[in-house]
Amino acid sequence: MEERALKALLDSLTWEEKVGQLVQLSGDFFHADQLAVGPQKKLGIDQAIVDQVGSVLNVTGAEKTKEIQDRHMAKSRHKIPLLFMADIIYGYRTIFPIPLGLGATWNPKLIESAYQQTAEESKAAGAHVTFAPMVDLVRDARWGRTLESTGEDPVLNSAFAKAMVTGLQKDLLNGGGIASCVKHFAAYGAAEGGREYNTVDMSERRLRQDYLPAYKAAVDAGCQLVMTSFNTYDGMPVTGNKFLLEDILRNEWGFDGVIISDYAAIQELIAHGVAANDREAAKLAIEATTDIDMKTPCYAKELEPLIKAGEISEELVNQSVYRVLKLKNDLGLFEDPYRGASSEQEEKVFLTAEKRSLAKKVSAESVVLLQNKNNVLPLTPNKEKVLLVGPYGDNQELIGLWAVHGQREDVVTIKKGFERYLDAEHLLYTQGCDMLEDYTFLGEFGATKDQIEQLGLNEAMKEKELDHALSLAKQADTIVFALGEHTMQSGEAGSRTDITLPKIQQDFLEKLVALNKKTVLLVISGRPLVLTKEVEQVDAIIQAWFPGTEGGNALADIIFGQTNPSGRLSMSFPYSVGQLPLYYSEFKTGRPLTSSTHKGRFVSKYLDSPNEPLFSFGYGLSYSKVDYSELRLSHEQMEETLDISVMIENSSDRSTLETVQLYVQDVTGSVVRPVKELKDFQKVVLAAGEKRKVEFQLNRNDLKFYTKEMKFSEEAGTFIVFVGPNVKETQTAEFELV
Amino acid sequence: MEERALKALLDSLTWEEKVGQLVQLSGDFFHADQLAVGPQKKLGIDQAIVDQVGSVLNVTGAEKTKEIQDRHMAKSRHKIPLLFMADIIYGYRTIFPIPLGLGATWNPKLIESAYQQTAEESKAAGAHVTFAPMVDLVRDARWGRTLESTGEDPVLNSAFAKAMVTGLQKDLLNGGGIASCVKHFAAYGAAEGGREYNTVDMSERRLRQDYLPAYKAAVDAGCQLVMTSFNTYDGMPVTGNKFLLEDILRNEWGFDGVIISDYAAIQELIAHGVAANDREAAKLAIEATTDIDMKTPCYAKELEPLIKAGEISEELVNQSVYRVLKLKNDLGLFEDPYRGASSEQEEKVFLTAEKRSLAKKVSAESVVLLQNKNNVLPLTPNKEKVLLVGPYGDNQELIGLWAVHGQREDVVTIKKGFERYLDAEHLLYTQGCDMLEDYTFLGEFGATKDQIEQLGLNEAMKEKELDHALSLAKQADTIVFALGEHTMQSGEAGSRTDITLPKIQQDFLEKLVALNKKTVLLVISGRPLVLTKEVEQVDAIIQAWFPGTEGGNALADIIFGQTNPSGRLSMSFPYSVGQLPLYYSEFKTGRPLTSSTHKGRFVSKYLDSPNEPLFSFGYGLSYSKVDYSELRLSHEQMEETLDISVMIENSSDRSTLETVQLYVQDVTGSVVRPVKELKDFQKVVLAAGEKRKVEFQLNRNDLKFYTKEMKFSEEAGTFIVFVGPNVKETQTAEFELV
Repeated sequence: MEERALKALLDSLTWEEKVGQLVQLSGDFFHADQLAVGPQKKLGIDQAIVDQVGSVLNVTGAEKTKEIQDRHMAKSRHKIPLLFMADIIYGYRTIFPIPLGLGATWNPKLIESAYQQTAEESKAAGAHVTFAPMVDLVRDARWGRTLESTGEDPVLNSAFAKAMVTGLQKDLLNGGGIASCVKHFAAYGAAEGGREYNTVDMSERRLRQDYLPAYKAAVDAGCQLVMTSFNTYDGMPVTGNKFLLEDILRNEWGFDGVIISDYAAIQELIAHGVAANDREAAKLAIEATTDIDMKTPCYAKELEPLIKAGEISEELVNQSVYRVLKLKNDLGLFEDPYRGASSEQEEKVFLTAEKRSLAKKVSAESVVLLQNKNNVLPLTPNKEKVLLVGPYGDNQELIGLWAVHGQREDVVTIKKGFERYLDAEHLLYTQGCDMLEDYTFLGEFGATKDQIEQLGLNEAMKEKELDHALSLAKQADTIVFALGEHTMQSGEAGSRTDITLPKIQQDFLEKLVALNKKTVLLVISGRPLVLTKEVEQVDAIIQAWFPGTEGGNALADIIFGQTNPSGRLSMSFPYSVGQLPLYYSEFKTGRPLTSSTHKGRFVSKYLDSPNEPLFSFGYGLSYSKVDYSELRLSHEQMEETLDISVMIENSSDRSTLETVQLYVQDVTGSVVRPVKELKDFQKVVLAAGEKRKVEFQLNRNDLKFYTKEMKFSEEAGTFIVFVGPNVKETQTAEFELV
Repeated sequence: MEERALKALLDSLTWEEKVGQLVQLSGDFFHADQLAVGPQKKLGIDQAIVDQVGSVLNVTGAEKTKEIQDRHMAKSRHKIPLLFMADIIYGYRTIFPIPLGLGATWNPKLIESAYQQTAEESKAAGAHVTFAPMVDLVRDARWGRTLESTGEDPVLNSAFAKAMVTGLQKDLLNGGGIASCVKHFAAYGAAEGGREYNTVDMSERRLRQDYLPAYKAAVDAGCQLVMTSFNTYDGMPVTGNKFLLEDILRNEWGFDGVIISDYAAIQELIAHGVAANDREAAKLAIEATTDIDMKTPCYAKELEPLIKAGEISEELVNQSVYRVLKLKNDLGLFEDPYRGASSEQEEKVFLTAEKRSLAKKVSAESVVLLQNKNNVLPLTPNKEKVLLVGPYGDNQELIGLWAVHGQREDVVTIKKGFERYLDAEHLLYTQGCDMLEDYTFLGEFGATKDQIEQLGLNEAMKEKELDHALSLAKQADTIVFALGEHTMQSGEAGSRTDITLPKIQQDFLEKLVALNKKTVLLVISGRPLVLTKEVEQVDAIIQAWFPGTEGGNALADIIFGQTNPSGRLSMSFPYSVGQLPLYYSEFKTGRPLTSSTHKGRFVSKYLDSPNEPLFSFGYGLSYSKVDYSELRLSHEQMEETLDISVMIENSSDRSTLETVQLYVQDVTGSVVRPVKELKDFQKVVLAAGEKRKVEFQLNRNDLKFYTKEMKFSEEAGTFIVFVGPNVKETQTAEFELV
């Protein structure tokens, strides 16, 4: 449809029809012809509203979406198709690792491919929009949604934001991909105390410097939608925050796509205490240019009365409606309301060999080898007896909490992966211990008391399993522990004050390591866990995240040396929860640990803990040894650009993937600057024995920051360049920016 | 001296002499005639500078100050006396409880008296200025300087700020008291991660709403000086922060007294990375109107060259010098450079019976009874056998870390206090366990390796002590544990990631509680500790802080029922370090725990911990039962004022002190408002069986806050009033502000 036709369509709509476009309801509203009962009625949504609604939340599947679309089109006076939006966060049917694992790949190109594949599956299943990428910067591992973030760094998160949007929206305006909705704008990841939905408070400087860049990268990459976050910023919940939505997102960044509230966030302005009722909530949100009301009656019931009362302008609402219609038109829905979705297409594109292969590759690159004492890894196939134990040993929950449309039965378990390398004589397996000591909290997620009682091993089984595990362990040469968080312990509303392994698993580990076998710990988790004790207890530690559909294969390939591990942490791993929030790019203090003027007690530190993390940002081992040398700068003084090179050499006899990281410190600024800031990185293949030069180029733009006067600008002066395999082990050189 | 004469004096000074007034050095610079060697030389300070210096840091004692003053005056061309400034934080010779304990008294009038007494002792000892009060708001118990703060609340902290300044400066301009220097301006208590000297980042809204009021209260109460804090605010260390020092403190608040840097903070602008060298550091600080450079050569060496180079104006420096001269003149130092200090006076006013009595009263009111299962307390004198154990049982360290001029030998230990109530037959005592398992960290505070090895019990003694304690415990009816932090584990640079009792003490407690005796735990600490385990293990818990010189007597009076405990927490006690930061006045979220629209998982909470603290703000028990009823408001609609009354009744047979607390919630605002805010409180005597009415009056000013447009103003609408004995157990009523 041409722009003129679209505008004519807009003009032809009644207010009721217009407002309908700004309302999103979930699938349950579309399955009945009558809404007289149940949750629908409680929400105060009647059939007349449903008939006008513009978009549908979390219904997917070609058949289901087609049925709803058909019914809707039959009723729609103007034949305006529904938009189907869904939570497709790290895969639709083929599930990739959780985004925190994707962050650990340091390979945005690869992740772009993964999201392109995801879009293909999603499109076949009738989804038009995914609520992804989630690009919230996070520096506090207590927060459950750490799982959905690529990590703590603005530059790395921005690279992934761009990659994900680009992958999802490939050829979007020509019928390809699906539309991307970046979330959660803005600063949701800074919830105080890591407690879900809690207040966010920070300076505008920190907001712009650290928290906004990844959203901006997604917008610059062309994402079609933006979702508001649940948190407050500067005292105003984002869904009603004109400064963030209108001043920054719309005006400064020029975003003219659709802004959608997060789930029920408009009505939640009442609980926040900035609106007294639905009408005030609707007014705040629409005035902030929030276009779509997800899952509340505020817009549906209050926008028209607000217009009639002259409290908001018609133009304001018309603009929002136009943005929604334009998105539908850009996606070609007026021509094909199914957008090519069909059961045949689903069958053709779901979980293909190519997709499984990509998923395995992504999983493999996401896995981080944290420790490998005495080079116990890799193991040699069928050479020694390996005992695999733990609640994740033969468990299809490897796709984690937020793989909404993934199917457990598709998942390759770790045991299945091991079976490719070990015959029955060499592979011993038993679960050995339960996931949790107590499953009660699952009641909050809808599990009934009876269901909860069925979970886990019963008391008799527990003892039997432990005995069995101990007897197998005695026969084994190496014990591989597959331990970790319960899926429900992370993800949305999965905030925890204690981020160690579940106690029952710690106790189990302790009993088995006492046997003095070679030990390997695989950690399945949605966040950096505190592994301080385990570092002392076991030989090797592999951080596996929730590794996705092909997780078991990827992990087996690494453990048995088929794949050389290459993942690098995109988030600091703390010694203890008492260190949080924790991140490498902290501001300089007046009394650094390495102070030349203050010694001993009176420096910025904890009495009982290192300042730095247990495992640093950028850290990760491989089976190779890569040496860095000859860091060279093209000039001592930089005018427009600076070329930086370093030699890296793989002194091992196997090929490896090395992530070379470039950090900078701006030594003196008009404001305090971080001790180090990531500026660039390259993931390069390095053949066995290969030595090669890696080159970077810095330009003036890379050195910009928010100056004292909040101007985004670079300042002349001394800079230190750090290049290395992680933030801690670096070569350094200095230059002057003139 | 009249103003005109003072200005003439200023005009008659050379630049060298002027700048000298802006420099403060510590005592070691004044003890030698030659500074060719040692730390003085390292600092780059020569004798010519010392001869012109304006003030002295941390030298006290009538004799010592007189000697330095005499020598200085003999050399001074214009006979400008030195100012003697010192860290006199919670008592000079008579030591009161640490300020966190003072906060728990909820009795500003009493604390005013305490600081008046402190000023009398300090003045006798030749101090002219004290670096007190410290009024930094703190919501993260990891921070060591929690010890020096009165707590987490702006209203309560402001009341104490005013009381302390008033007490210290009584009759100041007529020769009484000493000058007060409020610190640390501003927001030092919000160091990220509770890590000492770390970055502070917050919105201006939070700064003004929560962090600034207590400093403002001190300024309004007339404090003569303000000390800058070590932290950054909005990217600029406070010592060079024009926004905080010039815009807010000088211009908005009209403060025309002396601003002094914290220790070495001007030179630390270099480590912060906002100054490249001493000259830039001096320039930033003087331009921000920091008058005195404490303990660095920046001003001494760089101000004159900066003037000569035209980089700063003469007027800027003249203003600072004038402020220092004016302070000296206001204190009468030109007439009497000793300001009445003398050894005779010291003897007369130090540690008098009146002062000891006041110290005991303050200690008693600071102590908080946290738990009293089965009313095990109070104990009856000489009725049962009481075993007193623990490293604080007979220990004179009860005055804590920052009682710089206090003397351990003046301290009444807990055992001494107990001996007033128990004869030898009924009092059993042994230390039982060591303070710490490891004293190594004291090396950072200057202890040598040999000294550290001498600390604590040796291995043989440890076992013997434990056995002895166990055998005594078996004979006892009640065990009183005097446990807590080592003095060096809190205070400046005493940040801890683990804030439980030292492990060795936990283990000791566990062994003794296994005997199933009645148990009382006295907690000596500079911060809220995590007492979650102990709550289950013992019957009664008394939070004793570092209770000061008379601590042993005050505690004994409470334990044996002579005094009815009345302290109330001014800071939340967490369940775990994973809850921090923690405070009662949190902002409303969109998904509160008590949400009507969201149930189960998707509310703002932790999966594994309550949101609320183990012990709440305002909480504390007594031996009486006080009932609240009949909360009445004078109007349903408030115009100018609102009268609030509540009936309280002491249904016990002993007199009690009850702290009645008034909180308000502003239900809907132009920005998100806290769930509760303390507005007023009264500490009242309630005789046995007495029932009485307590009345409050709210006015419009009490309801003001920083609105969306950052106007300090009240907004019409619904308010909820909460009145009760703590923030959690309250009666409620509603009114409309019109």
